Amino acid sequence: MITSRQNPRIKAVAALKNRANREREGRAVVYGVRESQRALDAGGKVVECLWCRDYFRSPEAETVVEQLASAGAELFEVAREAFDKLAYGDRQDGVVSVFETPRRTLAELQLPETPLVAVLEGVEKPGNLGAVLRSADGAGIDAVLVVDPVIDLFNPNAIRASVSAVFQANVVAATASEVLTWLRENSLAIWATRPDASGMYWDVDFRQPGAIVLGGEAEGLTDAWQSPDVTPVALPMHGVADSLNVSATAAVLFYEARRQRNGS
Amino acid sequence: MITSRQNPRIKAVAALKNRANREREGRAVVYGVRESQRALDAGGKVVECLWCRDYFRSPEAETVVEQLASAGAELFEVAREAFDKLAYGDRQDGVVSVFETPRRTLAELQLPETPLVAVLEGVEKPGNLGAVLRSADGAGIDAVLVVDPVIDLFNPNAIRASVSAVFQANVVAATASEVLTWLRENSLAIWATRPDASGMYWDVDFRQPGAIVLGGEAEGLTDAWQSPDVTPVALPMHGVADSLNVSATAAVLFYEARRQRNGS
Repeated sequence: MITSRQNPRIKAVAALKNRANREREGRAVVYGVRESQRALDAGGKVVECLWCRDYFRSPEAETVVEQLASAGAELFEVAREAFDKLAYGDRQDGVVSVFETPRRTLAELQLPETPLVAVLEGVEKPGNLGAVLRSADGAGIDAVLVVDPVIDLFNPNAIRASVSAVFQANVVAATASEVLTWLRENSLAIWATRPDASGMYWDVDFRQPGAIVLGGEAEGLTDAWQSPDVTPVALPMHGVADSLNVSATAAVLFYEARRQRNGS
Repeated sequence: MITSRQNPRIKAVAALKNRANREREGRAVVYGVRESQRALDAGGKVVECLWCRDYFRSPEAETVVEQLASAGAELFEVAREAFDKLAYGDRQDGVVSVFETPRRTLAELQLPETPLVAVLEGVEKPGNLGAVLRSADGAGIDAVLVVDPVIDLFNPNAIRASVSAVFQANVVAATASEVLTWLRENSLAIWATRPDASGMYWDVDFRQPGAIVLGGEAEGLTDAWQSPDVTPVALPMHGVADSLNVSATAAVLFYEARRQRNGS
């Protein structure tokens, strides 16, 4: 059992709170029992798991530690005081795990016959990125392309808000020009959400193969998405604000597409 | 011009960062030029405005200060160092205003002939409350009833995330039993979002007079919403997670209702 806060394993995992360290090591930290389970479910490759029985709150914790071990995680039992050094946020449920940071490319994406893809450009808040990924996962979007992210996809808040969906194989970071080229090569319709568009999203035929493109919180979409083959679409806005939060816009469009594709 | 951080006005406004003080004084603080403008547009009653030209970033700031004055705000010009004491979050654009906290009751609500209402129970995060209010405002929901809020409706994060929609006359806090009684008296259909419901939201006829009921982040809806006249509805979930973020769920349902009511 690891009892010292100065233990090299503890120090190495604590250092992954820092983005530069995560990127250099190619590792991400997942805090929490359910989050670790979901990162595994999402296809993440676990490297190690640190656990502290004093913090277990349900029998689920033990089960998840066993699943992580079966998936190849090296296990480290940690005493309370040393484990506290790994705390993130206000919760502590006795499980912290380290995953490989997936590095995927557009070329590796596997798509169904009539794909529905989401593109998210320039998002600045990890919570918004996470919420968009969670909605995309819920609505059954086939791939999420994150364009020029200001933030680190494996920021702990993004992992938590996405309920670990960020580990799925269909989440890829790329540049705007790479994504546009790829969308065109795959003959996908391109629907760009813009508050000033005259076309309403509910008039779009989302049963076609296509991509829903969303801009960041502050600036919206860049000029890369001003093109004759990009259809601007808007949500009707009835009140004082001129747009919704990006994660709300995303949910509305993803589920409208899902509804149409379900034939409802 | 106020130059001292010890000035009584500065101290009084800074004290409103504290919830207990806000509630005792019946005052809320709105940080920012656009937020202040929108609080006014939303029907908020402004009491005073503190402004600092050094932080103005656009001509809009001056215009908004004038509008606040026309609406009855007492103006206080503040020097940079004293104004810094009022900072909230990472932005500072030279305008901080104090509004009356609206105290509205269900009895005062004015509804159209075929109302569409939102009910939000037990929400815990100000950002989520704000995002739900912003989506309700965008979708043209007629009233938002906030049931037993754990948080203060006039928390600065809730104001900001709602783009000041929290000041609108159609936002009312009440208990679950008051809200249920009021919904029944007004003959509104009641649709409660539950992850385990068998009925899908897109099969609901939202053109009826009705209320969309949403639960908090952690526990969902309480048993008050288990009743024969409450219809449970769910969003289909295709991925690893069993639900969406409450603000995403709200946006999807509000806009589906708007779509149906628009005849699209």
